[in-house]
Amino acid sequence: MRREQARDRILRATVDTLAQQGYAGTTARAIALRGGFAPGVIYYHYTDLDDLFRQTMRFVSDGRMDRYREQVVGVTSAVELLERLRVLHDEDVASGHISAVQELIAGGSEPVTDQIRTEVRRWQDLAEEVIGALVAQTPFAPFIPVRQAAEAVIAFYLGLEMLQQIDVDPSRTDTFFASAQQAAVFFDTFRT
Amino acid sequence: MRREQARDRILRATVDTLAQQGYAGTTARAIALRGGFAPGVIYYHYTDLDDLFRQTMRFVSDGRMDRYREQVVGVTSAVELLERLRVLHDEDVASGHISAVQELIAGGSEPVTDQIRTEVRRWQDLAEEVIGALVAQTPFAPFIPVRQAAEAVIAFYLGLEMLQQIDVDPSRTDTFFASAQQAAVFFDTFRT
Repeated sequence: MRREQARDRILRATVDTLAQQGYAGTTARAIALRGGFAPGVIYYHYTDLDDLFRQTMRFVSDGRMDRYREQVVGVTSAVELLERLRVLHDEDVASGHISAVQELIAGGSEPVTDQIRTEVRRWQDLAEEVIGALVAQTPFAPFIPVRQAAEAVIAFYLGLEMLQQIDVDPSRTDTFFASAQQAAVFFDTFRT
Repeated sequence: MRREQARDRILRATVDTLAQQGYAGTTARAIALRGGFAPGVIYYHYTDLDDLFRQTMRFVSDGRMDRYREQVVGVTSAVELLERLRVLHDEDVASGHISAVQELIAGGSEPVTDQIRTEVRRWQDLAEEVIGALVAQTPFAPFIPVRQAAEAVIAFYLGLEMLQQIDVDPSRTDTFFASAQQAAVFFDTFRT
Protein backbone atom coordinates (compact mmCIF):
# COMPACT_ATOMS: atom_id res chain seq x y z
CA MET A 1 0.00 0.00 0.00
CA ARG A 2 2.82 2.43 0.84
CA ARG A 3 4.45 1.37 -2.42
CA GLU A 4 1.24 2.28 -4.24
CA GLN A 5 1.07 5.65 -2.51
CA ALA A 6 4.68 6.46 -3.30
CA ARG A 7 4.14 5.64 -6.97
CA ASP A 8 1.00 7.69 -7.07
CA ARG A 9 2.87 10.66 -5.66
CA ILE A 10 5.65 10.31 -8.24
CA LEU A 11 3.16 10.03 -11.10
CA ARG A 12 1.25 13.12 -9.99
CA ALA A 13 4.48 15.10 -9.68
CA THR A 14 5.46 13.95 -13.18
CA VAL A 15 2.14 15.12 -14.66
CA ASP A 16 2.53 18.53 -13.01
CA THR A 17 6.15 18.89 -14.09
CA LEU A 18 5.36 17.98 -17.70
CA ALA A 19 2.46 20.45 -17.76
CA GLN A 20 4.44 23.27 -16.13
CA GLN A 21 7.98 22.80 -17.41
CA GLY A 22 7.60 20.89 -20.65
CA TYR A 23 9.14 17.61 -21.71
CA ALA A 24 12.74 18.82 -21.74
CA GLY A 25 12.36 20.40 -18.31
CA THR A 26 11.02 17.19 -16.80
CA THR A 27 14.20 15.77 -15.32
CA ALA A 28 14.27 13.46 -12.30
CA ARG A 29 15.50 16.42 -10.30
CA ALA A 30 12.63 18.68 -11.40
CA ILE A 31 10.02 15.98 -10.66
CA ALA A 32 11.53 15.31 -7.24
CA LEU A 33 11.63 19.01 -6.40
CA ARG A 34 7.98 19.43 -7.33
CA GLY A 35 6.90 16.29 -5.47
CA GLY A 36 8.98 16.95 -2.38
CA PHE A 37 10.98 13.72 -2.41
CA ALA A 38 14.56 12.71 -3.23
CA PRO A 39 15.37 12.02 -6.93
CA GLY A 40 16.57 8.52 -5.94
CA VAL A 41 12.98 7.59 -5.02
CA ILE A 42 12.09 7.71 -8.73
CA TYR A 43 14.73 5.14 -9.63
CA TYR A 44 13.63 2.92 -6.79
CA HIS A 45 10.19 2.63 -8.38
CA TYR A 46 10.95 3.03 -12.10
CA THR A 47 13.75 1.68 -14.30
CA ASP A 48 14.40 5.03 -15.98
CA LEU A 49 12.56 8.15 -17.12
CA ASP A 50 11.11 6.40 -20.19
CA ASP A 51 9.58 3.80 -17.89
CA LEU A 52 8.22 6.59 -15.69
CA PHE A 53 6.79 8.45 -18.71
CA ARG A 54 5.10 5.28 -19.99
CA GLN A 55 3.54 4.69 -16.59
CA THR A 56 2.52 8.36 -16.44
CA MET A 57 0.72 8.04 -19.78
CA ARG A 58 -1.02 4.91 -18.51
CA PHE A 59 -1.87 6.58 -15.18
CA VAL A 60 -3.46 9.66 -16.77
CA SER A 61 -5.33 7.58 -19.33
CA ASP A 62 -6.63 5.07 -16.76
CA GLY A 63 -7.76 7.77 -14.38
CA ARG A 64 -9.61 9.74 -17.02
CA MET A 65 -11.06 6.63 -18.63
CA ASP A 66 -12.62 5.47 -15.35
CA ARG A 67 -14.21 8.88 -15.01
CA TYR A 68 -15.43 9.00 -18.63
CA ARG A 69 -16.82 5.44 -18.45
CA GLU A 70 -18.72 6.20 -15.27
CA GLN A 71 -20.24 9.28 -16.93
CA VAL A 72 -20.93 8.21 -20.50
CA VAL A 73 -21.50 4.46 -20.75
CA GLY A 74 -25.20 3.68 -20.92
CA VAL A 75 -26.29 7.23 -21.72
CA THR A 76 -28.90 6.91 -24.44
CA SER A 77 -29.69 10.56 -25.20
CA ALA A 78 -27.30 12.53 -27.41
CA VAL A 79 -28.20 15.75 -25.56
CA GLU A 80 -27.42 14.17 -22.19
CA LEU A 81 -24.17 12.69 -23.53
CA LEU A 82 -23.04 16.05 -24.83
CA GLU A 83 -23.72 17.78 -21.51
CA ARG A 84 -21.61 15.23 -19.71
CA LEU A 85 -18.79 15.46 -22.28
CA ARG A 86 -18.72 19.19 -21.78
CA VAL A 87 -18.00 18.81 -18.06
CA LEU A 88 -15.39 16.09 -18.69
CA HIS A 89 -13.70 18.19 -21.37
CA ASP A 90 -13.36 21.17 -19.04
CA GLU A 91 -11.91 18.91 -16.35
CA ASP A 92 -9.31 17.60 -18.84
CA VAL A 93 -8.13 21.05 -19.79
CA ALA A 94 -8.15 22.46 -16.24
CA SER A 95 -6.27 19.52 -14.71
CA GLY A 96 -3.16 19.90 -16.87
CA HIS A 97 -3.58 16.32 -18.11
CA ILE A 98 -3.89 17.47 -21.69
CA SER A 99 -0.70 19.53 -21.48
CA ALA A 100 1.17 16.59 -19.99
CA VAL A 101 -0.05 14.20 -22.69
CA GLN A 102 0.78 16.72 -25.40
CA GLU A 103 4.33 17.04 -24.08
CA LEU A 104 4.66 13.26 -24.18
CA ILE A 105 3.28 13.09 -27.75
CA ALA A 106 5.66 15.80 -28.91
CA GLY A 107 8.75 14.79 -26.96
CA GLY A 108 8.47 11.14 -25.96
CA SER A 109 10.88 8.52 -27.28
CA GLU A 110 9.72 5.32 -28.95
CA PRO A 111 8.70 3.29 -25.85
CA VAL A 112 6.60 6.24 -24.67
CA THR A 113 5.05 6.74 -28.11
CA ASP A 114 4.21 3.05 -28.15
CA GLN A 115 2.31 3.42 -24.89
CA ILE A 116 0.49 6.45 -26.31
CA ARG A 117 -0.63 4.36 -29.30
CA THR A 118 -2.03 1.72 -26.95
CA GLU A 119 -3.92 4.34 -24.95
CA VAL A 120 -5.30 6.06 -28.06
CA ARG A 121 -6.70 2.71 -29.19
CA ARG A 122 -8.37 2.18 -25.82
CA TRP A 123 -10.04 5.59 -26.17
CA GLN A 124 -11.16 4.71 -29.68
CA ASP A 125 -12.69 1.50 -28.26
CA LEU A 126 -14.61 3.49 -25.66
CA ALA A 127 -15.84 5.97 -28.29
CA GLU A 128 -16.87 3.07 -30.52
CA GLU A 129 -18.87 1.50 -27.70
CA VAL A 130 -20.68 4.75 -26.88
CA ILE A 131 -21.38 5.77 -30.49
CA GLY A 132 -22.47 2.21 -31.36
CA ALA A 133 -25.01 2.18 -28.52
CA LEU A 134 -26.26 5.63 -29.51
CA VAL A 135 -26.82 4.94 -33.20
CA ALA A 136 -28.22 1.45 -32.53
CA GLN A 137 -31.40 3.17 -31.35
CA THR A 138 -31.90 5.04 -34.60
CA PRO A 139 -32.78 4.11 -38.16
CA PHE A 140 -29.32 5.30 -39.36
CA ALA A 141 -27.47 2.43 -37.67
CA PRO A 142 -26.76 0.48 -40.89
CA PHE A 143 -25.26 3.54 -42.60
CA ILE A 144 -22.86 4.77 -39.93
CA PRO A 145 -19.33 3.31 -39.92
CA VAL A 146 -19.03 3.29 -36.13
CA ARG A 147 -15.29 2.53 -35.90
CA GLN A 148 -14.32 5.33 -38.26
CA ALA A 149 -16.68 7.70 -36.49
CA ALA A 150 -15.00 6.75 -33.19
CA GLU A 151 -11.53 7.42 -34.61
CA ALA A 152 -12.69 10.75 -36.03
CA VAL A 153 -14.19 11.75 -32.68
CA ILE A 154 -10.93 11.00 -30.83
CA ALA A 155 -8.91 13.02 -33.39
CA PHE A 156 -11.35 15.92 -33.14
CA TYR A 157 -11.38 15.84 -29.36
CA LEU A 158 -7.58 15.85 -29.19
CA GLY A 159 -7.35 18.78 -31.61
CA LEU A 160 -10.06 20.68 -29.74
CA GLU A 161 -8.31 20.27 -26.43
CA MET A 162 -4.96 21.31 -27.90
CA LEU A 163 -6.43 24.48 -29.34
CA GLN A 164 -8.30 25.11 -26.12
CA GLN A 165 -5.05 24.84 -24.25
CA ILE A 166 -3.36 27.59 -26.24
CA ASP A 167 -6.63 29.44 -25.85
CA VAL A 168 -7.02 30.31 -29.50
CA ASP A 169 -10.51 31.45 -28.91
CA PRO A 170 -11.84 31.06 -25.39
CA SER A 171 -15.43 31.04 -26.60
CA ARG A 172 -14.79 28.33 -29.21
CA THR A 173 -15.73 25.48 -26.92
CA ASP A 174 -18.95 27.24 -25.91
CA THR A 175 -20.06 27.85 -29.47
CA PHE A 176 -19.02 24.36 -30.49
CA PHE A 177 -21.06 22.75 -27.74
CA ALA A 178 -24.02 25.03 -28.53
CA SER A 179 -24.05 23.96 -32.19
CA ALA A 180 -23.51 20.34 -31.32
CA GLN A 181 -26.41 20.55 -28.92
CA GLN A 182 -28.75 21.59 -31.72
CA ALA A 183 -27.59 18.59 -33.73
CA ALA A 184 -28.03 16.36 -30.67
CA VAL A 185 -31.63 17.53 -30.16
CA PHE A 186 -32.31 16.68 -33.81
CA PHE A 187 -30.58 13.32 -33.44
CA ASP A 188 -32.61 12.44 -30.36
CA THR A 189 -35.86 12.86 -32.29
CA PHE A 190 -34.91 9.76 -34.29
CA ARG A 191 -34.50 7.49 -31.26
CA THR A 192 -36.91 4.57 -31.42
CA MET B 1 17.39 39.20 -52.29
CA ARG B 2 20.41 37.69 -50.54
CA ARG B 3 18.85 38.77 -47.27
CA GLU B 4 15.66 36.93 -48.24
CA GLN B 5 17.62 33.82 -49.17
CA ALA B 6 19.57 33.83 -45.92
CA ARG B 7 16.36 34.11 -43.92
CA ASP B 8 14.76 31.35 -45.92
CA ARG B 9 17.70 29.09 -45.18
CA ILE B 10 17.54 29.83 -41.45
CA LEU B 11 13.78 29.20 -41.36
CA ARG B 12 14.11 25.86 -43.17
CA ALA B 13 16.88 24.77 -40.81
CA THR B 14 14.68 25.76 -37.85
CA VAL B 15 11.75 23.67 -39.13
CA ASP B 16 14.02 20.64 -39.59
CA THR B 17 15.66 21.06 -36.19
CA LEU B 18 12.29 21.37 -34.42
CA ALA B 19 10.98 18.28 -36.22
CA GLN B 20 14.11 16.21 -35.58
CA GLN B 21 15.34 17.39 -32.19
CA GLY B 22 12.27 18.79 -30.47
CA TYR B 23 11.70 22.22 -28.99
CA ALA B 24 14.28 21.92 -26.23
CA GLY B 25 16.92 20.66 -28.66
CA THR B 26 16.38 23.59 -31.01
CA THR B 27 19.17 25.88 -29.84
CA ALA B 28 20.85 28.45 -32.10
CA ARG B 29 23.82 26.10 -32.24
CA ALA B 30 21.72 23.10 -33.34
CA ILE B 31 19.94 25.15 -36.02
CA ALA B 32 23.24 26.53 -37.32
CA LEU B 33 24.79 23.08 -37.41
CA ARG B 34 21.87 21.69 -39.39
CA GLY B 35 21.77 24.64 -41.79
CA GLY B 36 25.52 24.84 -42.27
CA PHE B 37 26.02 28.45 -41.17
CA ALA B 38 27.48 30.19 -38.12
CA PRO B 39 25.14 30.67 -35.11
CA GLY B 40 25.77 34.43 -35.29
CA VAL B 41 23.91 34.56 -38.61
CA ILE B 42 20.69 33.83 -36.74
CA TYR B 43 21.13 36.87 -34.50
CA TYR B 44 21.95 39.06 -37.46
CA HIS B 45 18.50 38.33 -38.92
CA TYR B 46 16.38 37.73 -35.80
CA THR B 47 16.24 39.46 -32.40
CA ASP B 48 16.24 36.22 -30.43
CA LEU B 49 14.97 32.64 -30.64
CA ASP B 50 11.40 33.67 -29.81
CA ASP B 51 11.47 36.05 -32.76
CA LEU B 52 12.86 33.25 -34.94
CA PHE B 53 10.18 30.79 -33.74
CA ARG B 54 7.41 33.31 -34.42
CA GLN B 55 8.73 33.85 -37.93
CA THR B 56 9.07 30.09 -38.37
CA MET B 57 5.40 29.61 -37.46
CA ARG B 58 4.46 32.33 -39.91
CA PHE B 59 6.74 30.89 -42.61
CA VAL B 60 5.30 27.37 -42.36
CA SER B 61 1.73 28.64 -42.20
CA ASP B 62 2.17 31.02 -45.17
CA GLY B 63 3.82 28.40 -47.32
CA ARG B 64 1.18 25.77 -46.66
CA MET B 65 -1.67 28.26 -46.95
CA ASP B 66 -0.57 29.34 -50.42
CA ARG B 67 -0.52 25.71 -51.45
CA TYR B 68 -3.92 24.91 -49.87
CA ARG B 69 -5.53 28.03 -51.39
CA GLU B 70 -4.26 27.18 -54.84
CA GLN B 71 -5.71 23.67 -54.49
CA VAL B 72 -9.00 24.14 -52.68
CA VAL B 73 -10.45 27.60 -53.32
CA GLY B 74 -13.14 27.45 -55.99
CA VAL B 75 -13.57 23.67 -55.85
CA THR B 76 -17.30 23.05 -55.92
CA SER B 77 -17.47 19.28 -55.62
CA ALA B 78 -17.07 17.70 -52.17
CA VAL B 79 -15.52 14.59 -53.73
CA GLU B 80 -12.96 16.66 -55.61
CA LEU B 81 -12.21 18.72 -52.51
CA LEU B 82 -11.60 15.61 -50.45
CA GLU B 83 -9.21 14.14 -53.00
CA ARG B 84 -7.17 17.30 -52.94
CA LEU B 85 -7.18 17.49 -49.15
CA ARG B 86 -5.86 13.96 -49.02
CA VAL B 87 -2.79 14.90 -51.07
CA LEU B 88 -2.23 18.08 -49.04
CA HIS B 89 -2.58 16.19 -45.76
CA ASP B 90 0.04 13.64 -46.78
CA GLU B 91 2.40 16.45 -47.79
CA ASP B 92 1.95 18.08 -44.36
CA VAL B 93 2.85 14.93 -42.49
CA ALA B 94 5.76 13.94 -44.76
CA SER B 95 7.37 17.40 -44.74
CA GLY B 96 7.88 17.54 -40.97
CA HIS B 97 5.86 20.77 -40.82
CA ILE B 98 3.32 19.21 -38.50
CA SER B 99 6.03 18.00 -36.11
CA ALA B 100 7.59 21.45 -36.07
CA VAL B 101 4.27 23.18 -35.39
CA GLN B 102 3.44 20.68 -32.69
CA GLU B 103 6.75 21.36 -30.96
CA LEU B 104 5.98 25.08 -31.05
CA ILE B 105 2.46 24.53 -29.67
CA ALA B 106 3.79 22.35 -26.84
CA GLY B 107 6.96 24.30 -26.03
CA GLY B 108 6.64 27.85 -27.31
CA SER B 109 6.59 30.82 -24.96
CA GLU B 110 3.85 33.45 -25.01
CA PRO B 111 4.97 35.50 -28.08
CA VAL B 112 5.19 32.26 -30.07
CA THR B 113 1.81 31.05 -28.82
CA ASP B 114 0.35 34.40 -29.80
CA GLN B 115 1.60 33.92 -33.35
CA ILE B 116 0.12 30.40 -33.38
CA ARG B 117 -3.28 31.83 -32.38
CA THR B 118 -3.11 34.29 -35.28
CA GLU B 119 -2.23 31.51 -37.73
CA VAL B 120 -4.98 29.19 -36.44
CA ARG B 121 -7.51 31.98 -37.05
CA ARG B 122 -6.25 32.44 -40.61
CA TRP B 123 -6.77 28.71 -41.22
CA GLN B 124 -10.25 28.92 -39.75
CA ASP B 125 -10.96 31.78 -42.16
CA LEU B 126 -9.83 29.68 -45.11
CA ALA B 127 -11.94 26.71 -43.94
CA GLU B 128 -14.92 29.03 -43.49
CA GLU B 129 -14.52 30.36 -47.04
CA VAL B 130 -14.32 26.86 -48.56
CA ILE B 131 -17.14 25.33 -46.49
CA GLY B 132 -19.33 28.39 -47.08
CA ALA B 133 -18.91 28.12 -50.86
CA LEU B 134 -19.60 24.39 -50.73
CA VAL B 135 -22.81 24.54 -48.71
CA ALA B 136 -24.09 27.63 -50.55
CA GLN B 137 -24.84 25.33 -53.47
CA THR B 138 -27.09 23.06 -51.43
CA PRO B 139 -30.48 23.35 -49.75
CA PHE B 140 -28.83 22.93 -46.30
CA ALA B 141 -27.12 26.32 -46.42
CA PRO B 142 -29.47 28.03 -43.93
CA PHE B 143 -29.00 25.27 -41.33
CA ILE B 144 -25.22 24.97 -41.27
CA PRO B 145 -23.30 27.23 -38.88
CA VAL B 146 -20.34 27.72 -41.22
CA ARG B 147 -17.95 29.39 -38.76
CA GLN B 148 -18.38 26.67 -36.14
CA ALA B 149 -18.04 23.99 -38.80
CA ALA B 150 -14.78 25.65 -39.93
CA GLU B 151 -13.43 25.70 -36.37
CA ALA B 152 -14.41 22.06 -35.89
CA VAL B 153 -12.68 21.09 -39.15
CA ILE B 154 -9.44 22.78 -38.11
CA ALA B 155 -9.51 21.08 -34.69
CA PHE B 156 -10.21 17.72 -36.33
CA TYR B 157 -7.48 18.18 -38.91
CA LEU B 158 -4.92 19.11 -36.28
CA GLY B 159 -5.83 16.08 -34.14
CA LEU B 160 -5.75 13.78 -37.18
CA GLU B 161 -2.30 14.97 -38.20
CA MET B 162 -0.97 14.61 -34.66
CA LEU B 163 -2.20 11.05 -34.42
CA GLN B 164 -0.91 10.35 -37.89
CA GLN B 165 2.46 11.59 -36.82
CA ILE B 166 2.78 9.11 -33.96
CA ASP B 167 1.39 6.59 -36.41
CA VAL B 168 -1.30 5.25 -34.13
CA ASP B 169 -2.84 3.37 -36.96
CA PRO B 170 -1.22 3.81 -40.34
CA SER B 171 -4.42 2.82 -42.11
CA ARG B 172 -6.55 5.33 -40.17
CA THR B 173 -6.18 8.07 -42.70
CA ASP B 174 -7.07 5.70 -45.53
CA THR B 175 -10.23 4.46 -43.87
CA PHE B 176 -11.14 7.98 -42.79
CA PHE B 177 -10.85 9.33 -46.31
CA ALA B 178 -12.76 6.32 -47.69
CA SER B 179 -15.71 6.96 -45.34
CA ALA B 180 -15.60 10.68 -45.93
CA GLN B 181 -15.67 10.03 -49.65
CA GLN B 182 -18.97 8.16 -49.33
CA ALA B 183 -20.41 11.12 -47.44
CA ALA B 184 -19.00 13.49 -50.09
CA VAL B 185 -20.65 11.54 -52.92
CA PHE B 186 -23.95 11.79 -51.04
CA PHE B 187 -23.39 15.51 -50.37
CA ASP B 188 -22.67 16.20 -54.03
CA THR B 189 -26.06 14.77 -55.06
CA PHE B 190 -27.66 17.79 -53.34
CA ARG B 191 -25.75 20.38 -55.33
CA THR B 192 -28.09 22.61 -57.25
